[in-house]
Amino acid sequence: MGNDQVIRLAHGSGGLLSYRLIRDVFQKHIHSKEIAKMDDAATIVSDTNDEILISTDSFVIDPIFFPGGNIGSLAVCGTVNDIAVSGGIPKYLTASFILEEGFSIHDLERIASSMGTEARDAGVQIITGDTKVVEKGKGDKIFINTTGIGWKHPEAHLGMDLIQPGDHIIINGYIADHGVAILSQREGLKFSSQIHSDARCLHHTIMKLIASYPGIRFMRDPTRGGVATVLSEIAQDSGKSLTIYEEKVPIRTETAGACDILGIDPLYLANEGKFILICSPGQSKTIIDAIRHDQIGSEPAVIGYVTDEGPHAWMKTRYGGTRILEMLPDEILPRIC
Amino acid sequence: MGNDQVIRLAHGSGGLLSYRLIRDVFQKHIHSKEIAKMDDAATIVSDTNDEILISTDSFVIDPIFFPGGNIGSLAVCGTVNDIAVSGGIPKYLTASFILEEGFSIHDLERIASSMGTEARDAGVQIITGDTKVVEKGKGDKIFINTTGIGWKHPEAHLGMDLIQPGDHIIINGYIADHGVAILSQREGLKFSSQIHSDARCLHHTIMKLIASYPGIRFMRDPTRGGVATVLSEIAQDSGKSLTIYEEKVPIRTETAGACDILGIDPLYLANEGKFILICSPGQSKTIIDAIRHDQIGSEPAVIGYVTDEGPHAWMKTRYGGTRILEMLPDEILPRIC
Repeated sequence: MGNDQVIRLAHGSGGLLSYRLIRDVFQKHIHSKEIAKMDDAATIVSDTNDEILISTDSFVIDPIFFPGGNIGSLAVCGTVNDIAVSGGIPKYLTASFILEEGFSIHDLERIASSMGTEARDAGVQIITGDTKVVEKGKGDKIFINTTGIGWKHPEAHLGMDLIQPGDHIIINGYIADHGVAILSQREGLKFSSQIHSDARCLHHTIMKLIASYPGIRFMRDPTRGGVATVLSEIAQDSGKSLTIYEEKVPIRTETAGACDILGIDPLYLANEGKFILICSPGQSKTIIDAIRHDQIGSEPAVIGYVTDEGPHAWMKTRYGGTRILEMLPDEILPRIC
Repeated sequence: MGNDQVIRLAHGSGGLLSYRLIRDVFQKHIHSKEIAKMDDAATIVSDTNDEILISTDSFVIDPIFFPGGNIGSLAVCGTVNDIAVSGGIPKYLTASFILEEGFSIHDLERIASSMGTEARDAGVQIITGDTKVVEKGKGDKIFINTTGIGWKHPEAHLGMDLIQPGDHIIINGYIADHGVAILSQREGLKFSSQIHSDARCLHHTIMKLIASYPGIRFMRDPTRGGVATVLSEIAQDSGKSLTIYEEKVPIRTETAGACDILGIDPLYLANEGKFILICSPGQSKTIIDAIRHDQIGSEPAVIGYVTDEGPHAWMKTRYGGTRILEMLPDEILPRIC
């Protein structure tokens, strides 16, 4: 990249510019086989051949308190989920805080308390941490980094290279609730019913699925950049074609309505309690049943299928057309996580 | 803590207020045996009994480029050193970036390149990362979190509870260079000779010492809060009394001179290439020789000893007096790492 270029908000979108920044800056200068894979978690192997999964994420969400969670609960669940979709049993977290001078200690306590509760419920231990403080105006209230450590699930055999033509694409429930919840809060929008973030830890469900269904090929959580960006990434990195049906993608009426009013495509909005799962066609029905049983009230669905027609993601629209799904080209909603 | 209290810069000093914030907020809400220990690194045990050390640190140093390093090299060495002083062989790092909108991509490349070089020289792999972007004015150029993963050195038997009366206290070289280098750069001060930060990875030296000297009881790197704060922490947490001699603490003439002019006590200034080592008195001389041999040009020294006169750190001044060394009570130099 040239000398005169600067970081734009879209470099943090999780979409196209993020992808290029990683490739053109980080991969260029930091040579590592694991970095090159661009997975949600890296796998390392100990001297006695334990496979250990590691994932890191910094959370800069604004607002820090939102319907359905706060930056603390999100920082626990976001990293727990990254370990889980990669086939790891989440065990430990580190937590590192960058606080802005003047930030309320009462709010910090609320956030720390949420982290404690969420970690306890998730069965993960927060084992070490760090706190830095920057001058007023040099940060924004609170940023949290969590790094997760998990043991590889013995039945987890996941990888993009395992994806085959004919495989089914599943999502575990309604999309775009997190994005709409944050946007509404930020803009002070009032809808007739309040939309809550879907932020939650998913590993209990994911571990059950991995233990029972060897037909699961690959999973990823559609956070920044949304479902469309994740499908496009999987298509590009696996070389396979992924096609979904617009009318099969579960979305709440109120979320769809809010997206209409805001002029935002819900397929590009972040989710914090969702996973995309690709599996053999013979197991998709029982996997859907298992998810529905485990996550009461959710609306899991087979939303599409895999073919070998090249590295692109497609959507069959409800009007019979076909649209290509690109990675999010710009930033529509900064600081969503 | 009360509802009306807010975060002050001193909460990030590594001194007394940091200590209280951890105790009164994080330990209160995040219950974990490992968090309670307040060590530089946590130890976890895998299913096959591998002992794994984990350490996390967020770097917010200002300026991001300074004589002797930059925020990227510091982020690698700082975490590598935390693993090493805890008895771990550093193996892997994660790297997570919070970038301010408008930050120069050229500068980002310089930082990423330093991280790549420093990691390669240190023999550690950067395995996964994350990038977030915040709006202009909501961050400050670049913050970096690194989390380190290491295997416990088989010969490392370190712990505060192993410290005994009669033990010697060693430092591996000149103190306060990092603090003075940052401060001079920040304030635009010119001294007759430029003082460079001592920031460097120490684990090669530390691993050799651990392999050879079973008399080593405990190590810690005196970063934020400096040598005085670390000695005070060790005294408080071990229940032992630590006494050092002012005239035995190695300090460069130009660093001491700069501290005099600035009116700052060098014992409270941060170091980024130093360790405090406590060992049996019979091995201190050979340990000093080994450090001198391994770190050409350094000035390692036995600076004091341990007694069982209670949980305090003391300094015998060069004028024959005795001064108690408290933890850094306030912030003298924010964003030093």
